[in-house]
Amino acid sequence: MTQLETYIKDNENYFVEDLKGWLRIPSISTLPEYANDVHRAAEYAAVQLRHIGLEHVEVIQTQGYPLVYADWLRASGKPIVLIYGHYDVQPVDPLELWETPPFEPTVREDNHMYARGAADDKGQMMLVLKALEALMTVNGTLPVNVRVLSEGEEEAGGTSIAHYVKTYPQRLHCDAVFICDTEMPSQDVPALICGLRGIIYTEVEVQGAKRDLHSGTYGGVAPNPLHALAIIISRLKNADGHIHIPGLYDKLREPSEAEKKLWREDPLHMNEALMQEMGVSQLSGELEYPPLQRIYARPTLEVHGIAGGFVGEGAKTVIPAVARAKISLRLPPNLKSDEVFTLFERAAKEAAPPDAQVTVRNIHGGEGVLTSPDSAPMKAAAEALKETYGKQPVLLGCGGSIPIAALFNEVLGVPIVMMGFGLASDSPHAPNENYSLDQFFKGIRTVASFLQKMGV
Amino acid sequence: MTQLETYIKDNENYFVEDLKGWLRIPSISTLPEYANDVHRAAEYAAVQLRHIGLEHVEVIQTQGYPLVYADWLRASGKPIVLIYGHYDVQPVDPLELWETPPFEPTVREDNHMYARGAADDKGQMMLVLKALEALMTVNGTLPVNVRVLSEGEEEAGGTSIAHYVKTYPQRLHCDAVFICDTEMPSQDVPALICGLRGIIYTEVEVQGAKRDLHSGTYGGVAPNPLHALAIIISRLKNADGHIHIPGLYDKLREPSEAEKKLWREDPLHMNEALMQEMGVSQLSGELEYPPLQRIYARPTLEVHGIAGGFVGEGAKTVIPAVARAKISLRLPPNLKSDEVFTLFERAAKEAAPPDAQVTVRNIHGGEGVLTSPDSAPMKAAAEALKETYGKQPVLLGCGGSIPIAALFNEVLGVPIVMMGFGLASDSPHAPNENYSLDQFFKGIRTVASFLQKMGV
Repeated sequence: MTQLETYIKDNENYFVEDLKGWLRIPSISTLPEYANDVHRAAEYAAVQLRHIGLEHVEVIQTQGYPLVYADWLRASGKPIVLIYGHYDVQPVDPLELWETPPFEPTVREDNHMYARGAADDKGQMMLVLKALEALMTVNGTLPVNVRVLSEGEEEAGGTSIAHYVKTYPQRLHCDAVFICDTEMPSQDVPALICGLRGIIYTEVEVQGAKRDLHSGTYGGVAPNPLHALAIIISRLKNADGHIHIPGLYDKLREPSEAEKKLWREDPLHMNEALMQEMGVSQLSGELEYPPLQRIYARPTLEVHGIAGGFVGEGAKTVIPAVARAKISLRLPPNLKSDEVFTLFERAAKEAAPPDAQVTVRNIHGGEGVLTSPDSAPMKAAAEALKETYGKQPVLLGCGGSIPIAALFNEVLGVPIVMMGFGLASDSPHAPNENYSLDQFFKGIRTVASFLQKMGV
Repeated sequence: MTQLETYIKDNENYFVEDLKGWLRIPSISTLPEYANDVHRAAEYAAVQLRHIGLEHVEVIQTQGYPLVYADWLRASGKPIVLIYGHYDVQPVDPLELWETPPFEPTVREDNHMYARGAADDKGQMMLVLKALEALMTVNGTLPVNVRVLSEGEEEAGGTSIAHYVKTYPQRLHCDAVFICDTEMPSQDVPALICGLRGIIYTEVEVQGAKRDLHSGTYGGVAPNPLHALAIIISRLKNADGHIHIPGLYDKLREPSEAEKKLWREDPLHMNEALMQEMGVSQLSGELEYPPLQRIYARPTLEVHGIAGGFVGEGAKTVIPAVARAKISLRLPPNLKSDEVFTLFERAAKEAAPPDAQVTVRNIHGGEGVLTSPDSAPMKAAAEALKETYGKQPVLLGCGGSIPIAALFNEVLGVPIVMMGFGLASDSPHAPNENYSLDQFFKGIRTVASFLQKMGV
């Protein structure tokens, strides 16, 4: 057994305890009442970075939540890897569906850690930090130069880090970016992500009358903003999953024959896995495209919530003055978020009934990204995964959006390695988020190996 | 000045204080946390009834909130008038729009009482009680026999009173029912309501996947219950206000030429009033029908709220497993609520996309009602209104629903006199509900006169 392996083996419990400590901090970045906790989670990351022996550890204040930076640049002549992660988490509602409290991390019988952030992204970021710690402790040095940059607004739009990256690209000079925030198709099938969808997240507000109205007195002559939103939403995307935003599909990249074949043949049986995870007998959406294409390479439009009126127990016959819908679109790499927002805003207004005054807000947006599997960092990552899992990783698109990946790509002009150890059953953003500890430890080994191969 | 007039004049402040005391009790019947307050509001009514000198005052326990009963049956040979009112109120959200707290009744500069329930129905019920008190105090007797029956579930479906009326019709034997829970077109134009719309209030639930999903990982293949609801709602009622429920319009009564003429000519300028109250430049709905017809004589469908997913600050990319819409229909008198519910349920399920599992719940329903203006009680009411306001009342339909009116009509087989003193600016069910104190005192005089005329 190598010294590195021995160190990892001997410290499993301690690694898990360090993760638990971080998970106990409810660092929900979208809810102002958790502001102190988000700051505490940043400090926790800084302590970890100092403990590893990284240098220039800094909690960088921003207009929003801080960035946590550290580097170690003593591997002369070796490449620089910029490691990114985020220490903020999603809200936890509906709380009643959690089997154990979201901020009391619990390892259940399945040897998975259950907590908000267990997968997204504290668990995945912690395994990278523990790989660095293992390498540094065993060797007294790292095989490559490293910068770590962590943010606390990934779930809230990532404004501060975007500003920082655009303002100080020279401080982030590197040869590759490594992001550990993605999934594998299953625990036997390692994966590298070479494509990510972008996103626009919007709020569509409809104003009707100047005040809430009683449906008995006004029903039949009053504008109903909730009804207007239903009409707008049903016009923007029909029951067949087609999005009716003029211009949206114009710039969509035609997939390669290899991609089409992979999606059609679905050798990993992901279609079945998706159905099982969702508990449905048939997949929804554009039935004329293979499901994997719908997830990775087609734009999608989803409603996340509709506010306004009365949703309590019982009955209230109110016609609300105002209603708001949260609507996002996922965008394959060559659809640009700002262009799509303009198209979306116009389409939403055109879809509205004449009595609806519509305002469309751009809450946040981010671009998709494509990374070549033939780049040196991607090859190193592929070899490391093969070493741990005994098989060549599959190259996948990813339906989710990591806007910062696109920004790094654009500003730093280097390959983005997206290698994560999450599983589809992790339930990120949902109740009972969890992370396989087996994947956690394999992740530590894989990342350590990846960095070693980068340094050869 | 008559003794009665003197009594009313001398006791204005005390009447208002009695009303305030009732309004301070937050008797919101749809929210379980106010259960104690709803009971307190019932006791308050009972105290008032005893104070008047009515007999057999009883707080009748039910499966839900109590009924408050009293009678006075000593006017030998005179008709029996059953007086109905309700002591429960609507919820108060959005609380931030109230200029004064909803349960701190405040008389503002406009000499209106502002509080939840000020109009609907504590204010209107209190003026009836004060008319009884004035008559009894001044004369030591009442001009007619009286039963008073008050409930605490009017805003929550009225199950208990419906059960009571159906079970014990003999206890409610009477010659007319009097309900003071309606409006006048303006403070110069007295009105009697001879038609009320019925209602069905439903909840449409859509189940998608078995758990909440992340739109990045599942967007494009996941069922989205919020999107399904948008499609269902937009198919049930289109942007032109047409309701697409097969069979709904089949039994609709053809309005008389007189009604059509009134609606078309709109001598009371209610269309302008409606636009001003709502702050809109054009009325919504079925433009091919006059607005008054849309309010009084056409069925309407309104969405009151849509629950599911995320509606907080910021962004959460959740696709909820379940979403629910509260949808009601107002029904002109000859559309029966149970028949319409069956049609609605079928239409809602047929309107659903194939990946939506739809459940439709009948939260409550009530029938519409028609009362002949030629009946003796309606004539007495008309004369009393003319006495107070100096002009003949207009005979109106009413867009709102008072299901109990239809039930009384059906079970007791007597005319229902709906004479109320509310104004369109009262904002019942909305923030800043209020009631004109001028109308309150005129109401006391009118009701006293009405009962006297009934007793002639």
